[in-house]
Amino acid sequence: MGRIICAGLGPGDPELMSVRSDRAIRGAAHVAYFRKKGRKGQARQIVEGMLAEGALEYPMEYPVTTEIPFDSPEYIRLLAEFYDDWANRLADLAATQEVVVLCEGDPFFYGSFMHLYIRLKDRVQVDVIPGITGMTGCWNVTGQPITWGDDVLTILMGTLPEDELAAHAAGSDALVIMKTGRNLPRVKRALARAGRLGEAWLVERGTMKGQRVDRLADVEDHDCPYFAIVLVHGQGRRPEIAEAAE
Amino acid sequence: MGRIICAGLGPGDPELMSVRSDRAIRGAAHVAYFRKKGRKGQARQIVEGMLAEGALEYPMEYPVTTEIPFDSPEYIRLLAEFYDDWANRLADLAATQEVVVLCEGDPFFYGSFMHLYIRLKDRVQVDVIPGITGMTGCWNVTGQPITWGDDVLTILMGTLPEDELAAHAAGSDALVIMKTGRNLPRVKRALARAGRLGEAWLVERGTMKGQRVDRLADVEDHDCPYFAIVLVHGQGRRPEIAEAAE
Repeated sequence: MGRIICAGLGPGDPELMSVRSDRAIRGAAHVAYFRKKGRKGQARQIVEGMLAEGALEYPMEYPVTTEIPFDSPEYIRLLAEFYDDWANRLADLAATQEVVVLCEGDPFFYGSFMHLYIRLKDRVQVDVIPGITGMTGCWNVTGQPITWGDDVLTILMGTLPEDELAAHAAGSDALVIMKTGRNLPRVKRALARAGRLGEAWLVERGTMKGQRVDRLADVEDHDCPYFAIVLVHGQGRRPEIAEAAE
Repeated sequence: MGRIICAGLGPGDPELMSVRSDRAIRGAAHVAYFRKKGRKGQARQIVEGMLAEGALEYPMEYPVTTEIPFDSPEYIRLLAEFYDDWANRLADLAATQEVVVLCEGDPFFYGSFMHLYIRLKDRVQVDVIPGITGMTGCWNVTGQPITWGDDVLTILMGTLPEDELAAHAAGSDALVIMKTGRNLPRVKRALARAGRLGEAWLVERGTMKGQRVDRLADVEDHDCPYFAIVLVHGQGRRPEIAEAAE
């Protein structure tokens, strides 16, 4: 009897994956991962040099890109077929083999694996290894704690309407905004309306080669990849530094 | 020249710490960690069996417990002195030695290390290794993704006023509520007011021995430790399962 292991990869630096994921990946004979057509894929890139000799690879290539609206019937149909198809192939393989599915960040925090997971969990054994989320890697590289004391932290997608973004930005101490990219002008307007733009940071490729950390106010509207993350740090309760005057 | 390495330990299962934290801890000659007086300490417990022979340990014992109100001047003064004192001791040691400070979860996500960090970062080299947050470990063991698609996730402390908890619970798709314990009755009332109590889970010791996952509605008010986490999963957009009828 085989099984499926979904290995959370963490934020990008291979040394930030868990000991358990590291071992699962190095020992895997079958390795599956999502990627865009024509790309190597970020997940595959992270494990470069880690796969065992002779490991079989199963790149799962998305049928569509983010260019098609998320709510179009065409997008939903294509994606559902894609997940159905790969769920069937992985279930067949996992009947006799152990298959490791790579997943950036944490598998249960947004991301694509969960669409396979709900199709597979009642058919084969699926073990999920958590990972450090991409946002955790990003706030780490800013060198500032994201939350203190009783801070409220809200995690938002840049795809939300401006009014919703602004309301959450005003009602929360700390913020993480993902799926930025072409949504950046709206995200900036919403943060400005909430009086938070001046505190916001943009982090791209956090913990990876080519990492970038900039004040959001200084970033041009067109200059933001889809996977960059916007952060506003909380400033909550903390005991004073008694020796600050020294 | 020495330095301080703060090693994020992750949610509790030692195999869920990062490869980099694992290596830092196994190689450390000086290991510091917070604990309550008279306890072994959760951080120290997680690394049981990992420390090198002869490693020197520096238990940093809190001068107070959570029983004293967070906003009392006495609490704030005692805690500030405690952090000042340990910052000085660690800075002295790090002048010539490498010191590993253990930190449950992720060091920059709530937690105590950041109070040392702001006192140390301009005096000695401090390297922080991120970790899987406790909440990530907890939602993992529920076997359900915490967020999908464009879900809004809000992270709240159970110490907040009931009205604030209820407002955030009504305005967010997914919820994480930490610092529960004696605040549990208020947390339950707030979730009930927002119509979310029926979807809520309580997770205690997620990924560790003695792990517990219960529906919150079934948990007695007095039956909740301070570090248990309440979760409400998001149910956001997802492509339909085309083969669900099979």
